[in-house]
Amino acid sequence: MKLSSFLNLMEEIAPASLAEEFDLGKIGLIVEGADEIDVVAAALDPTPKVVQSAAALGADMLVVHHTPLFTPVTRISGQTARILRVLLTNEMNLFVMHTNFDRAEQGINDALADLIELSNRSYMSLGIVGDSQLPLNEVIRRLGCGVRVHGTITSNNRLAVVGGSGFSLDLMEEAVACGAEAFISSELKHSIERHIPLPCIEATHYALESPGMKALSERMGWTYIDDPPESHLLV
Amino acid sequence: MKLSSFLNLMEEIAPASLAEEFDLGKIGLIVEGADEIDVVAAALDPTPKVVQSAAALGADMLVVHHTPLFTPVTRISGQTARILRVLLTNEMNLFVMHTNFDRAEQGINDALADLIELSNRSYMSLGIVGDSQLPLNEVIRRLGCGVRVHGTITSNNRLAVVGGSGFSLDLMEEAVACGAEAFISSELKHSIERHIPLPCIEATHYALESPGMKALSERMGWTYIDDPPESHLLV
Amino acid sequence: MKLSSFLNLMEEIAPASLAEEFDLGKIGLIVEGADEIDVVAAALDPTPKVVQSAAALGADMLVVHHTPLFTPVTRISGQTARILRVLLTNEMNLFVMHTNFDRAEQGINDALADLIELSNRSYMSLGIVGDSQLPLNEVIRRLGCGVRVHGTITSNNRLAVVGGSGFSLDLMEEAVACGAEAFISSELKHSIERHIPLPCIEATHYALESPGMKALSERMGWTYIDDPPESHLLV
Amino acid sequence: MKLSSFLNLMEEIAPASLAEEFDLGKIGLIVEGADEIDVVAAALDPTPKVVQSAAALGADMLVVHHTPLFTPVTRISGQTARILRVLLTNEMNLFVMHTNFDRAEQGINDALADLIELSNRSYMSLGIVGDSQLPLNEVIRRLGCGVRVHGTITSNNRLAVVGGSGFSLDLMEEAVACGAEAFISSELKHSIERHIPLPCIEATHYALESPGMKALSERMGWTYIDDPPESHLLV
Amino acid sequence: MKLSSFLNLMEEIAPASLAEEFDLGKIGLIVEGADEIDVVAAALDPTPKVVQSAAALGADMLVVHHTPLFTPVTRISGQTARILRVLLTNEMNLFVMHTNFDRAEQGINDALADLIELSNRSYMSLGIVGDSQLPLNEVIRRLGCGVRVHGTITSNNRLAVVGGSGFSLDLMEEAVACGAEAFISSELKHSIERHIPLPCIEATHYALESPGMKALSERMGWTYIDDPPESHLLV
Amino acid sequence: MKLSSFLNLMEEIAPASLAEEFDLGKIGLIVEGADEIDVVAAALDPTPKVVQSAAALGADMLVVHHTPLFTPVTRISGQTARILRVLLTNEMNLFVMHTNFDRAEQGINDALADLIELSNRSYMSLGIVGDSQLPLNEVIRRLGCGVRVHGTITSNNRLAVVGGSGFSLDLMEEAVACGAEAFISSELKHSIERHIPLPCIEATHYALESPGMKALSERMGWTYIDDPPESHLLV
Repeated sequence: MKLSSFLNLMEEIAPASLAEEFDLGKIGLIVEGADEIDVVAAALDPTPKVVQSAAALGADMLVVHHTPLFTPVTRISGQTARILRVLLTNEMNLFVMHTNFDRAEQGINDALADLIELSNRSYMSLGIVGDSQLPLNEVIRRLGCGVRVHGTITSNNRLAVVGGSGFSLDLMEEAVACGAEAFISSELKHSIERHIPLPCIEATHYALESPGMKALSERMGWTYIDDPPESHLLV
Repeated sequence: MKLSSFLNLMEEIAPASLAEEFDLGKIGLIVEGADEIDVVAAALDPTPKVVQSAAALGADMLVVHHTPLFTPVTRISGQTARILRVLLTNEMNLFVMHTNFDRAEQGINDALADLIELSNRSYMSLGIVGDSQLPLNEVIRRLGCGVRVHGTITSNNRLAVVGGSGFSLDLMEEAVACGAEAFISSELKHSIERHIPLPCIEATHYALESPGMKALSERMGWTYIDDPPESHLLV
Repeated sequence: MKLSSFLNLMEEIAPASLAEEFDLGKIGLIVEGADEIDVVAAALDPTPKVVQSAAALGADMLVVHHTPLFTPVTRISGQTARILRVLLTNEMNLFVMHTNFDRAEQGINDALADLIELSNRSYMSLGIVGDSQLPLNEVIRRLGCGVRVHGTITSNNRLAVVGGSGFSLDLMEEAVACGAEAFISSELKHSIERHIPLPCIEATHYALESPGMKALSERMGWTYIDDPPESHLLV
Repeated sequence: MKLSSFLNLMEEIAPASLAEEFDLGKIGLIVEGADEIDVVAAALDPTPKVVQSAAALGADMLVVHHTPLFTPVTRISGQTARILRVLLTNEMNLFVMHTNFDRAEQGINDALADLIELSNRSYMSLGIVGDSQLPLNEVIRRLGCGVRVHGTITSNNRLAVVGGSGFSLDLMEEAVACGAEAFISSELKHSIERHIPLPCIEATHYALESPGMKALSERMGWTYIDDPPESHLLV
Repeated sequence: MKLSSFLNLMEEIAPASLAEEFDLGKIGLIVEGADEIDVVAAALDPTPKVVQSAAALGADMLVVHHTPLFTPVTRISGQTARILRVLLTNEMNLFVMHTNFDRAEQGINDALADLIELSNRSYMSLGIVGDSQLPLNEVIRRLGCGVRVHGTITSNNRLAVVGGSGFSLDLMEEAVACGAEAFISSELKHSIERHIPLPCIEATHYALESPGMKALSERMGWTYIDDPPESHLLV
Repeated sequence: MKLSSFLNLMEEIAPASLAEEFDLGKIGLIVEGADEIDVVAAALDPTPKVVQSAAALGADMLVVHHTPLFTPVTRISGQTARILRVLLTNEMNLFVMHTNFDRAEQGINDALADLIELSNRSYMSLGIVGDSQLPLNEVIRRLGCGVRVHGTITSNNRLAVVGGSGFSLDLMEEAVACGAEAFISSELKHSIERHIPLPCIEATHYALESPGMKALSERMGWTYIDDPPESHLLV
């Protein structure tokens, strides 16, 4: 497939117009490689390990959720140099979809809601609220990362999920208005925690966002390269 | 004691000049109450529960680490109104020491290093690196909150501790240069986690900062009011 | 009456959308008190004397023209602490209408035009021009504060009035275009005075804006609390 | 005298380094005219009447307190065009000293203190506090403009004077600390008036600043051109 | 003709709404002179020589392309004083049309395209692409200033022309899309030159923009005052 | 040689502290490659042709004057991708010295003054003024690019030279004060040209700056890669 055709396809999957303003210039084709796309790999982050695996697969295109160039750069060194070296040497393209894929149909949040089987979904400005039939420990088992629960969960018949760093008070109020009894996201800050209006389940960023990239890869016949940060809970 | 004498005393404990620039105008006497200070209480955050307990103790002064007015306000409502109502009705003063107390001698970070018995201390731009004799599980038991470990800890003979949100890459590099083998702080973001140069132990903000306020209270004969956010780990 | 019903009522009296952009976040419910509104007081400014009088009346709501929190605050002390202490201790709400009430029907400027009996009114972007039948000394007597006249008034058959600090050159040009022969407002600056296109009558801010708050109080059955700054002319 | 020599002389009278930062680029030689300075005129403001009188005197140089180009311009029209036409056609230089002359020895504030015979002077960050032997009505008679008194004057043995718009709360606190019992300046705003810590005497800007320009003109042998804005009090 | 009628006429010739945002406040009537317009002169720049020639012609109005007050001023000295002195002394108006005249019908770019006989014109966001029948040396002879050619011109059947500093990469890409084989403008910077997508012909600013002012002058019966900067090529 | 030793060497040649503030973050090691430096190449710009030639030479280090990443980037495409691909694939370091090398001893401007044999040198804030013995046509012949002369040169006994875009009015005034009779630099803008205080000789950016890089290469035993933009004059 021609690169231009692939870009059109990606625009259908995650239209750029869905992205937050802070993503302007930081999504789409971030590193330009070969013009002919035969082998596509996907991952959450373009880590050194991921780009090397993609190169080993002979990928012409790597689709990720997080750009390696979020902060604009005037020098290329350290890990950025290592990643770009692999990409450029192999003429591998790097394509980023971020908040546009969070919001897209069958995107990050839909995949997360699928994972824990939410039905009767309400779509918030970011994230989803839905009815849950699973017991809480099964929800947590499926997330697969271990969680910190803030507050006391008395019922989990209706849950809010937001991939990434979604613990904003505005979103939580929106979730309450949609009937949510608990709120699943990652990276809860202490200053926010002091004002949460409902119990919060803090998972890892990777656990919440990788299902969307995996599901997309399966759907499209791409190779998903799993590279979770190593972490575990200790009491 | 006169309010002015108390303010002088606090300036010795945590000189305002030690604070970060973003704390300008947000530390010191934040709510002005009675001019005569007889009963002093302390806490990490001025939550509704904390101010009510302080009022029940007849406190004229409440010393905290986090201001309730970090973002400048033009209206007083919700939880801010509830807190200010108790303070103003009881003519209770509210005094804040934040990054100046993090850096002060016998401040937040020293208390944390005491808690886990660090010796041979090196002082970083923020936080401390020191030798540890305790086994890792005892370190974690003393923190008391359960932790998430990022990366693999192969040795914990020398540890970095930073109260609050201390997981910045600059601080971690500084810790490595001081010989740290693991880094203890709170609120590690995914984008940082992808670049950590040493294993990280993510505790809660409250667990890391409350020891400093408790220790100060004991030293000064004040009443420390404990009010940890409710949280627990689930695997 | 419920607080929410009272807020709806106020929105009808002085729609927030009429306010200048600089009033954003500085009008409406500025201090949140009791949820049930039985006794309402009004004043131009929430001075210490005003809030104490309102408390003595058992007011649940105080409606004023000028917010005490125009400049965003990160500390509560001095006069602000004295005012908020009375409001919060008594669970008295504080509601502010500023430039939205200047522009509202039967608002600040209409009341001022009523006071000096202007007919055949033209509405400017702010303020009113109208025909006057009263002799000049009677106009000034009704303002009640003594004035400084800038320039020479040769006729006062048609007058412009602008409550508050209304001496902008743009407004004066608009007034001239509406046929005004003199312009009444307060706080004329020397740099503006050097360019005035018509004679100006400089009254006090209080004299021009309190009639609107008084008239509203009468209309609504509220208690107006008068507290003019003490001033007099000396030659 | 050569223009360059005249500029050196002015730098001695009112060093540019004494000026407030907001005067940067707005003091000194503002309109460049003839290089030989024989006849010098002075005034408070370069009004059309003032520049025409200066031209009639054959002035090569006009020294004023207020620049006609405070707001940077990209077009020349209306009153600015009228003033510049007279200056440029006559090759008359225009020299401005503003806050640097307020602070200069024998400057605006010293001349004002001389006018009302203040002794035992304390110099504030701007303005002067001194002992007064004159009765209050004589002080006011000498100002010559009629005043508005805010608050009640119980004693006027020690007075603060600040030429121009000097009613800032910081200056008033400084005056109180210097023993002032009343504060003389111009253009008191309502929002400040509500917090004044001592009685205030509001005169006109012109009455407070013209004595300094007159005194300098006498000292230097220049012609002072008087052009007060027309105003009078009416009760 | 009344000044107001002349201004209406100019608005038809070069509507202000066509101007770039950076021209806001810097086009239109820039120096206000006499109200009656009998004699009109035009030039590219209001140089000292141009304004003196216009004055010698008895012009009431001078129409130019470049304002002498592009950077807002707070002082009038040097060449600006010399120019304004002639304009104001003679009550000569100065009218500026800049990017609005670049884009206007029969404006700067149309006149330039006429000069080198471009047909089949495509209008870009700024500038024109058209078919050329003239040999390259004749094109350059008509520009009249000598040029520097960047890159190699292999065909000049279709040319882009942009009056003024038009060598932006965006415009060049637009020109390529319109079929241009070479791009004529002025002031090519080295950092741009390194990325040019088609051969560039660098002429002088004056040579490209004066034809538009001359053509307008002829059409309107005004006197065009030619004042090219003196320059020549040396090898 | 180790990379770190090479960086120390470069700091001696062109100390970073000499650079303009706008070069902050844009000089020094811009692309990080191999840690061992054996073969060094140099050029003015890292064009595609230059980096390929350097790669063919087996260079580990390329030293240039102009960074390819002046504007901070969040995507790598087009020419930037082509350049970085060659650099990163070959593990070639890219080192930039810009305004620090302009000012360095034996830097850009000294080399330029050497080329046209200037003696008795005065150093300006940027650039050099010196006595010239060569006839003007020989000066121009040595520059090698053909020039545009602005104004009339009546004597060239003393010349100012400024590598790069040096035609600022401040520099020209400085040159006049140093006795310069003509001023050599590149990229003279029309708006500046209208105010030049001495005759100007406009050469190309490349012709003025490449001699400095060549001379340094010879001195250091590096390979200089010449890649001038293709240009010629046409009358």
